[in-house]
Amino acid sequence: MKIRHVIEAQQFNKELLEEIFREAEEMERIAFSGGSDILRHNIMATVFYEPSTRTRLSFESAMLRLGGEIVSTENAKEFSSAAKGESLQDTVRTLQSYSDIIVLRHYESGAAKAAVEVATVPIINAGDGSGQHPTQSLLDMYTIKQSFCGFEKLKVALVGDLENGRTVRSLSYLLAKYEGVKIFFVSPECLKMRDDIKEYLERHNVTWEESEDLSEIAPEVEVIYMTRIQRERLLDRPDDYEKAKGKFVVDKKIIDSMKKEAILLHPLPRVDEISVEVDNNPRSMYFKQVQNGLFVRMALLKMCLIN
Amino acid sequence: MKIRHVIEAQQFNKELLEEIFREAEEMERIAFSGGSDILRHNIMATVFYEPSTRTRLSFESAMLRLGGEIVSTENAKEFSSAAKGESLQDTVRTLQSYSDIIVLRHYESGAAKAAVEVATVPIINAGDGSGQHPTQSLLDMYTIKQSFCGFEKLKVALVGDLENGRTVRSLSYLLAKYEGVKIFFVSPECLKMRDDIKEYLERHNVTWEESEDLSEIAPEVEVIYMTRIQRERLLDRPDDYEKAKGKFVVDKKIIDSMKKEAILLHPLPRVDEISVEVDNNPRSMYFKQVQNGLFVRMALLKMCLIN
Amino acid sequence: MKIRHVIEAQQFNKELLEEIFREAEEMERIAFSGGSDILRHNIMATVFYEPSTRTRLSFESAMLRLGGEIVSTENAKEFSSAAKGESLQDTVRTLQSYSDIIVLRHYESGAAKAAVEVATVPIINAGDGSGQHPTQSLLDMYTIKQSFCGFEKLKVALVGDLENGRTVRSLSYLLAKYEGVKIFFVSPECLKMRDDIKEYLERHNVTWEESEDLSEIAPEVEVIYMTRIQRERLLDRPDDYEKAKGKFVVDKKIIDSMKKEAILLHPLPRVDEISVEVDNNPRSMYFKQVQNGLFVRMALLKMCLIN
Repeated sequence: MKIRHVIEAQQFNKELLEEIFREAEEMERIAFSGGSDILRHNIMATVFYEPSTRTRLSFESAMLRLGGEIVSTENAKEFSSAAKGESLQDTVRTLQSYSDIIVLRHYESGAAKAAVEVATVPIINAGDGSGQHPTQSLLDMYTIKQSFCGFEKLKVALVGDLENGRTVRSLSYLLAKYEGVKIFFVSPECLKMRDDIKEYLERHNVTWEESEDLSEIAPEVEVIYMTRIQRERLLDRPDDYEKAKGKFVVDKKIIDSMKKEAILLHPLPRVDEISVEVDNNPRSMYFKQVQNGLFVRMALLKMCLIN
Repeated sequence: MKIRHVIEAQQFNKELLEEIFREAEEMERIAFSGGSDILRHNIMATVFYEPSTRTRLSFESAMLRLGGEIVSTENAKEFSSAAKGESLQDTVRTLQSYSDIIVLRHYESGAAKAAVEVATVPIINAGDGSGQHPTQSLLDMYTIKQSFCGFEKLKVALVGDLENGRTVRSLSYLLAKYEGVKIFFVSPECLKMRDDIKEYLERHNVTWEESEDLSEIAPEVEVIYMTRIQRERLLDRPDDYEKAKGKFVVDKKIIDSMKKEAILLHPLPRVDEISVEVDNNPRSMYFKQVQNGLFVRMALLKMCLIN
Repeated sequence: MKIRHVIEAQQFNKELLEEIFREAEEMERIAFSGGSDILRHNIMATVFYEPSTRTRLSFESAMLRLGGEIVSTENAKEFSSAAKGESLQDTVRTLQSYSDIIVLRHYESGAAKAAVEVATVPIINAGDGSGQHPTQSLLDMYTIKQSFCGFEKLKVALVGDLENGRTVRSLSYLLAKYEGVKIFFVSPECLKMRDDIKEYLERHNVTWEESEDLSEIAPEVEVIYMTRIQRERLLDRPDDYEKAKGKFVVDKKIIDSMKKEAILLHPLPRVDEISVEVDNNPRSMYFKQVQNGLFVRMALLKMCLIN
């Protein structure tokens, strides 16, 4: 199966998800056996208007492991022609002369869709504002699948600033595809999940519940998905930031209250919402997620660039 | 033919220009057939004291398409030893231990020439202050040649801030080599082309004329070369910036007034001096220029690095 | 011999130093014969929390000359998750999913050791605050060895801000391994070498002497090792910076007073502590050091990555 662009979680159906997970498993084998050259003579442009070393290096490593090449800018907002007033669409039209695929991180929700309108090469959305971050959700799903072999009937707690977190939004869209899933939105009152997602879940018969008490929810679920309270998304709401900061912390007590087979995820970076004392707990999968991110991105690059 | 350094438009004679254009055509074939490895084991250092994602990625893509490797800094002014007081010449002496060719963008006119004084590897000037930007002019010329098969008797309008624009300066030097060329300098009164270029044109028997009225000139010429009013070059002259900004705009009316075979060029990025409504007009060649930039730079890298 | 991590000068014994120098010589041959592919399919992450184009590009060039690949951030402090509050150890755990070796430059002394605690891939310390910069010292030693075939009984003057200079600290540790070495610490009164190094030298029976007069010491020594007064390390001590700045300058008079076979070293960048008029003096080895840095780093990459 070929993928044209990777823009938002909603674009993936169950069949395509299965195919991506199968490819990711294959990529795991390739990565551990020293890489491959299937993307030789392909150039990927990583264009980050909002710096993110983690995501950028994950994509770049994925491309290199498959034998491809990279051109890159880690601070496009300041360094590229955007600073001179150029439109994103002009930038995309330019970049596609230099590359075979464009990985775009932007500070504005909807940027990836705007890029696609003029694109002649595949666009991968590596996060657009408070919009989506679909490759993160795909690696989240891949990690869950590795632990439970499927998604049916899973109970998942999404924890943190759910109003502004794009990873929890994209993940909700993907979980909604599977039967019997139940989602617990655990957030401060002032940073609750937005209505569009709640309505989407209802249309897809996914049960959800809201809570402000993580210790109550922790023993109930198969997956706790912690997220950071992102100061950079709350610059104009310092009171809400203060209320939310430090409100939810997974420490030894919380993780010990979880089911035996349950797992703890986090898109990273973490600040203090997961105590380092639980890093070695077998339920802690956040560094496994990092590694899975490489395999999932390798899979996506292959599926975008090779028929 | 081997090129030692690429420093300024004046260094190219007609014979060498023809050779570069021939190589660029060959590079177009190579790029579309998946690249080559002729520059394998060659390292290019891209050192940008003034950020320009467009130009940097164009050079880097050119190097990669030919199988070469890259080391790069996109903000040398802040990140390199320049911030600690090192001279450009010391930097060049250092970089040539790490690379086989240096692509230099600098904020000071004359920087490329200073670099050449100590260089043991080829230096390519990727723009130095309000000095020159020779590879831009070469791709401009290549694009003109593709449309008209030659340059004799062409009438060319250069439009915008002609006082500070380095692309229009370099292009003037190159056009002056061909018989019967006529140049129209279209600029606000306060940003006219400097005398050194006018005198150069006169010494080479090139006719030129000045105007402040683009609509009057548009129907007369084969080439309109629009440029952006660069705020960053007019920081200390806000009045002149305000006068110039928005003064010349190619919209549907202007482009429709052009000759049928005429073309519209722009070095990009554009802000609003070309309306997006004319992007699909067959005369609009600015995204073609971007692509040609890749081929011309591939040609130059080959001619600098291979005998 | 395999090296696990490169963290500090003290980790190298004489036998290992000899092995590194032998490998560096071999690398010199490889570099001049067009590179090799022994590190093909290996990825190096260069993560610089403190920008240093010189050191970063030296490592990257070394990796490329051996056929390896690179992922890189030149301003990790601002661009990476550090800006969002992530710990260095979390960053390292993440990066090792994307790379086979990590080259780390950090603004805090001890950062490399902290990284090693969680690392599953080799870490190379590319400078940590006022701590160490071991690869610089190895290339310094390699350059000295090329000139004198050994280190026994050498008299070496270390000149500049010895309190905050990490290169002079690391170099002291390495010189202390050889018999009969004598070190002259030439610094302003306010920026003298710290006691820990002096005590280390005494424990290893290395003679040392302090001076504020370079012209008196210059004729006595085989090696003058000049360093820059680093304004960035003295931001809170402007008086000391002013006292030190310009205090020691090697000009034609000083270099002519040196022994015939003596050499002048500098880790670069220089500001004005070595006059450009002595650049072509046969004793001036600082650009040779730059080149040797490439060979030594190639050797270290090989020894870290290949059994």
